[in-house]
Amino acid sequence: MTEPHIPLPPPPEEVRHVACVGAGVIGGGWVAHFLARGYSVTAWDPAPDAEEKLRRLVDAAWPALTQLGLAEGASTERLTVASTLEEAVAGAQFVQESAPEKLELKRELLARIDAAAPAEAVIASSTSGYPMTDMQTRAANPGRLLVGHPFNPPYLIPLVEVVGGERTDRAAVEWASRFYEAAGKSVITMDRELPGFIANRLQEALWREALHMVNNGEATVRDIDASITEGPGLRWAFMGPCLTFALAGGEGGMGHMLDHFGPSLKSPWTRLEAPELDSALRTAMVEGCDEAADGRTIAQLVAERDQGVIDVLRATGRLSGAGSVAARERSGDA
Amino acid sequence: MTEPHIPLPPPPEEVRHVACVGAGVIGGGWVAHFLARGYSVTAWDPAPDAEEKLRRLVDAAWPALTQLGLAEGASTERLTVASTLEEAVAGAQFVQESAPEKLELKRELLARIDAAAPAEAVIASSTSGYPMTDMQTRAANPGRLLVGHPFNPPYLIPLVEVVGGERTDRAAVEWASRFYEAAGKSVITMDRELPGFIANRLQEALWREALHMVNNGEATVRDIDASITEGPGLRWAFMGPCLTFALAGGEGGMGHMLDHFGPSLKSPWTRLEAPELDSALRTAMVEGCDEAADGRTIAQLVAERDQGVIDVLRATGRLSGAGSVAARERSGDA
Repeated sequence: MTEPHIPLPPPPEEVRHVACVGAGVIGGGWVAHFLARGYSVTAWDPAPDAEEKLRRLVDAAWPALTQLGLAEGASTERLTVASTLEEAVAGAQFVQESAPEKLELKRELLARIDAAAPAEAVIASSTSGYPMTDMQTRAANPGRLLVGHPFNPPYLIPLVEVVGGERTDRAAVEWASRFYEAAGKSVITMDRELPGFIANRLQEALWREALHMVNNGEATVRDIDASITEGPGLRWAFMGPCLTFALAGGEGGMGHMLDHFGPSLKSPWTRLEAPELDSALRTAMVEGCDEAADGRTIAQLVAERDQGVIDVLRATGRLSGAGSVAARERSGDA
Repeated sequence: MTEPHIPLPPPPEEVRHVACVGAGVIGGGWVAHFLARGYSVTAWDPAPDAEEKLRRLVDAAWPALTQLGLAEGASTERLTVASTLEEAVAGAQFVQESAPEKLELKRELLARIDAAAPAEAVIASSTSGYPMTDMQTRAANPGRLLVGHPFNPPYLIPLVEVVGGERTDRAAVEWASRFYEAAGKSVITMDRELPGFIANRLQEALWREALHMVNNGEATVRDIDASITEGPGLRWAFMGPCLTFALAGGEGGMGHMLDHFGPSLKSPWTRLEAPELDSALRTAMVEGCDEAADGRTIAQLVAERDQGVIDVLRATGRLSGAGSVAARERSGDA
């Protein structure tokens, strides 16, 4: 990276105080998460009833967080609601911005946060929509601005996607990834900006296909939801789509699966056109699965999958017996 | 439907004996499922070592099935491996065909099954690729032929998609849906043939987007899998994508979500183009979600989601604490 380097932030595991700018559903969820992990949190939100709503959100989340296991010293009393943005970030070692998705607003807020926060603090945006390159334009120190994109609710869903903009210091990205992990999140660090990052691209593809189906009268909302919760969704809670599909290849794994099901990429199974399955892509998928399997054999992965499905079925109250989706009658005219 | 009606099959819950034609990973999985639900099963597969492999598959699945809870009288000893297809289906009240995905083979097998099975037996194909309309061409009694598409492994994943072809009797489709439910499956009954049915279309859209990302070097296999298992996959094990997205709309539910995030359907968040979000589609989504919510308020759904995520995290050994995805360094040049 060619941008001016940021002042050295503290070791990620020594952070004790974070600021959250914006305290709606996502920002408030971050507040709850950081409190539960034992941080002290200063929050700010311009809405007049923001403090009341935020404390209600945190209180509502606390029983769940207690079930998950609170960090030592975690307390809702470690939340301070500041009356100005500048006051909120003044002593922060890390800042999480979760303002509404409006580019101008984000640009302005990030510049103000940058101006008011300690020089060594890293500043992350929860944006799901904008690349940091477009948001860091007005900040005096863009090197410490990056995206830390959570999933709703941030206090329960582990994933955070971390990615910098063109003017972000690589060291800030690495520091933020380590900080989020220290704070109990599961981190994917991206080396380039991509609209929708990773998870949203994947679920958006699924979502758009679902909309097409409803639009064409091919399936109902209920069908679509049931097709996931009673089908692939049971596996995706613990094994991703790539490794899951590798198991469809039997002992031959991903390679065999691609050779066997490759032709179906040409089938009209969705409105999305697939890339050409050339040898480079085949190799990338096979080697990627080998890496993800991390030494586990196909038989071991199958055993893990089976046990995982059983555990998930049990956890969600669906041990076998009666079918859980009622037969549905449509007066269709197929 | 205009086709000749099939002879009346027995009430679905009185079926005691099923035949499975084809005993590979899917067919063998069906055998294990039916045995565990207390049926007697006759299987046939032309491979020379089919019986040995099948019994090994059933034995391997049995501990999992025992965990899930066996039906009264369920026993691996109720499996008979027949030496001919005709012998296998001769006394069957229901036949599940799970041969390799080759159209000519399926056509021929289904015609032979139809010729040999009792007149009142309903016959289902596990195909994931062919519409029944294309497979039932040679059978003397096409009215009783339909698709019963399972997910791997059929003895663990509840979903079965049931759909007939143009010449299938509607009564056979209804009977099969009720039979599968009596046999412990979760059934989606479709009123028209659609390439990939429902769940495979959804996961294929996600899969194709994943292949594009790997192909472009935008994400690794490990990133893709982690983005699901640490993110939306945790929710999809018990709440489908539509209801999940409805919760992103806060108290306004799906309607507010579509109004707020509708514009992102125009964003390049995947390579799949979305349908136009006109008022008809908006209404279909909102009413569909209302129907799926079945009287539950948004607050109740949020509480269910949160408890579900906690249960799934606990079941899969991921109660909070250290991030479960190791920081990953790529020598990128963003």
